[in-house]
Amino acid sequence: LDLHLDLTGQQPRAALEHALREAVQSGRLVAAVRLPSSRSLAADLGIARNTVADVYEQLTAEGWLASRQGSGTWVADRIAPDDVGASRMTSKIHTSGRSRPRLDLRPGSPDVASFPRARWLAAARQAVQAAPDEAFGYIDPRGLPQLRHTLAQYLARARGVRTSPDRIVVCSGFVQAMSLLGTALQRSGATAVAAESPGVGLHRDALAATGLAVTPLCVDGGGIVTSDLSLSEGSAALLTPAHQFPLGVVLRPDRREAAIDWARETSGVLIEDDYDGEFRYDRQPVGALQALDPARVIFVGTASKTLAPGLRLAWMAVPSTLLDAVIAAKRVSDLHTGVMEQLTLSRFIESGEYDRHIRRSRLKYRKRRDRLVDSISASAPQIRVTGISAGLHAVLDLSGMSTSMSFEDEVVSRAAAQGVAVSALGTFRFAGEPGAHPALVVGYGTPSDSSFSPALEALCQTLSMA
Amino acid sequence: LDLHLDLTGQQPRAALEHALREAVQSGRLVAAVRLPSSRSLAADLGIARNTVADVYEQLTAEGWLASRQGSGTWVADRIAPDDVGASRMTSKIHTSGRSRPRLDLRPGSPDVASFPRARWLAAARQAVQAAPDEAFGYIDPRGLPQLRHTLAQYLARARGVRTSPDRIVVCSGFVQAMSLLGTALQRSGATAVAAESPGVGLHRDALAATGLAVTPLCVDGGGIVTSDLSLSEGSAALLTPAHQFPLGVVLRPDRREAAIDWARETSGVLIEDDYDGEFRYDRQPVGALQALDPARVIFVGTASKTLAPGLRLAWMAVPSTLLDAVIAAKRVSDLHTGVMEQLTLSRFIESGEYDRHIRRSRLKYRKRRDRLVDSISASAPQIRVTGISAGLHAVLDLSGMSTSMSFEDEVVSRAAAQGVAVSALGTFRFAGEPGAHPALVVGYGTPSDSSFSPALEALCQTLSMA
Repeated sequence: LDLHLDLTGQQPRAALEHALREAVQSGRLVAAVRLPSSRSLAADLGIARNTVADVYEQLTAEGWLASRQGSGTWVADRIAPDDVGASRMTSKIHTSGRSRPRLDLRPGSPDVASFPRARWLAAARQAVQAAPDEAFGYIDPRGLPQLRHTLAQYLARARGVRTSPDRIVVCSGFVQAMSLLGTALQRSGATAVAAESPGVGLHRDALAATGLAVTPLCVDGGGIVTSDLSLSEGSAALLTPAHQFPLGVVLRPDRREAAIDWARETSGVLIEDDYDGEFRYDRQPVGALQALDPARVIFVGTASKTLAPGLRLAWMAVPSTLLDAVIAAKRVSDLHTGVMEQLTLSRFIESGEYDRHIRRSRLKYRKRRDRLVDSISASAPQIRVTGISAGLHAVLDLSGMSTSMSFEDEVVSRAAAQGVAVSALGTFRFAGEPGAHPALVVGYGTPSDSSFSPALEALCQTLSMA
Repeated sequence: LDLHLDLTGQQPRAALEHALREAVQSGRLVAAVRLPSSRSLAADLGIARNTVADVYEQLTAEGWLASRQGSGTWVADRIAPDDVGASRMTSKIHTSGRSRPRLDLRPGSPDVASFPRARWLAAARQAVQAAPDEAFGYIDPRGLPQLRHTLAQYLARARGVRTSPDRIVVCSGFVQAMSLLGTALQRSGATAVAAESPGVGLHRDALAATGLAVTPLCVDGGGIVTSDLSLSEGSAALLTPAHQFPLGVVLRPDRREAAIDWARETSGVLIEDDYDGEFRYDRQPVGALQALDPARVIFVGTASKTLAPGLRLAWMAVPSTLLDAVIAAKRVSDLHTGVMEQLTLSRFIESGEYDRHIRRSRLKYRKRRDRLVDSISASAPQIRVTGISAGLHAVLDLSGMSTSMSFEDEVVSRAAAQGVAVSALGTFRFAGEPGAHPALVVGYGTPSDSSFSPALEALCQTLSMA
């Protein structure tokens, strides 16, 4: 056997080990081939015998070689080839990491170019330097006490939430909150949950993945149609009371009452998705539904719209009856959310930076909303723009142009041809649920400052030609 | 009705809203109480009528008040009291956020006081400043491409792992890897998974929470008893080949082969828990088992021992056949792991800081191990210290002192009386599994530099008196 090993100019131990492992992995040395004795290979290579013996022992421990006392050393016969199926199989999956087109007016994301990097890093530095050592170890599944304290105060002040640090659970994003709640609700006997249609498909998927049936809950101009609640199978419902996603309506006061009544009568719970409660333009934000009955409403907030989705930070105010089950689910899900983000967010809120960032963002998004409304009314006056009192997106009612439901997909395609991505309202409904009229959902929060104008122009051009 | 509202010196709009909401929440204004008309309250308070009307409207929108055209405004009758059950109910759960005793020699954590805060923050600053805007939006469930690229290279170099960036999945800690794999394995038809006994209870819990049955796999001086694999129900097994947790043995070469053979014959998979593969003291680290068959072994690594558990950062090299299912599970679990940690870790590895930190830590832990072995042999020579060739913990065989299995719990209690926490080996076994002899697991990596000596002294004092 000629090994053809070239160890020139290298540290012999590492070079020999690398060369032999490589030769086995690549198939150049095939199974069952006998290797020279350590003595003879050492002589061939001009290195110490112990070095060769060490390398043989290491590669035997790893399973590349095999040996038996008195029988020498040979190439093990269990080396598998590379696992090469991956790139083919995952081509479809790649799209789940949303690849952004140049001009993006799809809803669901704030302008990530405006994420306050320097201020966030400054808060991280202050918070990490000041943190006790224990903060870097395994912590309470609910999150760092300091952050839960800060959040309880912030949510009371900004959103009217009635809770305590004990009942706050810090989550790795809103989707995780759905996953934990789905698991906890099942433990308490629930088999189904109602969710708004239209709504966010990913949230339905996360609830369904825990084993719950997810049933549609109709939405009209007053928010969810609460009389449908009693028809739905579940005794849990997911809703967006402050600003329905994607329709943008506010849950009407009598329906807030009706929803609470339903939860009490069925011993059920309401999950309040407060994804953009901080962004209200024409009047004060509507306080959290949770405050009306903290034992029946789970409040869920997120930093995905106020800061950036990439942070994967959300928080829940959990009723005491569900708390143990949520903590147990969190423990086996990821033990707890990363402490760096928690330390930083806590400092960011306490220092007032969070409020300042939201105020700046609110001003900016309000201007964008006004420009959107003005531009549409100038270029396509037959389109009604709705859901604009809050949030980062608007609904464009296309019924003045066509009554065909497929018209919305047509407009999405035409917009894509103009280089701008928008979403058809239909993509947010449950499969098979009919829509009333064709409409687009336009996320004016998504583009960067420099791409908002071209995106709006491309949209208006599409609509004026449609 | 006298409202007793004192608005002196405050902005009237906010003060009135706050005072009224507070009065309703506290029960001072009870359900169905009629409020004065906006005109008369405005006159009483000396503020504008519109201000009162605005506040009534806001509180009606939030559900505190109710009103009907022509019937005035009254206090809504659905206000629930505070949800006060929480602090009582969660007293037990509090312990899940591991409260640390003053001197802690329990295994499972590195010295978090040595977490390189300044270096980590510097890497965060560089990485966050250099990141593209898209990094802060919703990203690929597998993680940032840059980090997956860096990890694939690092794992090949440091652990001999054969994978590609496409098949790396960044996780929010090791526990999440178990949760995702449990879900993915079930999709591919698995109903059970075998796990080492003794092993980590939390990992078994995370697998069991996905619905898999978890069966025990015996461990002896050569690692898992591979002949038991064929007896176990599952076609998946979780193991720690490089340094068994907690026994500290290395999986013997013939058993590495046998485990791979078993996986091939049963179309099963091995989950390689490489929790401390980087910390080997007396010889080179044993390369990853995964390299022998990348299609049959899932490699899972973590930053919990090399950096800090609080980061909640882990990574998997996933076979192509399981990749789609793992990605789908990650998507509905938390969409993706937070980008700040990902950006920072990528920079930390690329700049060489990760390797430098591991080298420094290895030197330090090796010295601690040597001191532990020397101190035990001086103070309690009848105790055999095993599992010391690698990692951050050792096993103290107490059979020279007592053959009663309950002796280990006794020693744990006596140590606690001396102010130092250690773990009985029995706590790591499956419920009902018998142990061979009493033993302690001592985590010498856990204490800070300043508390290691007193912790060791307290332990030796306990043992010399036992």
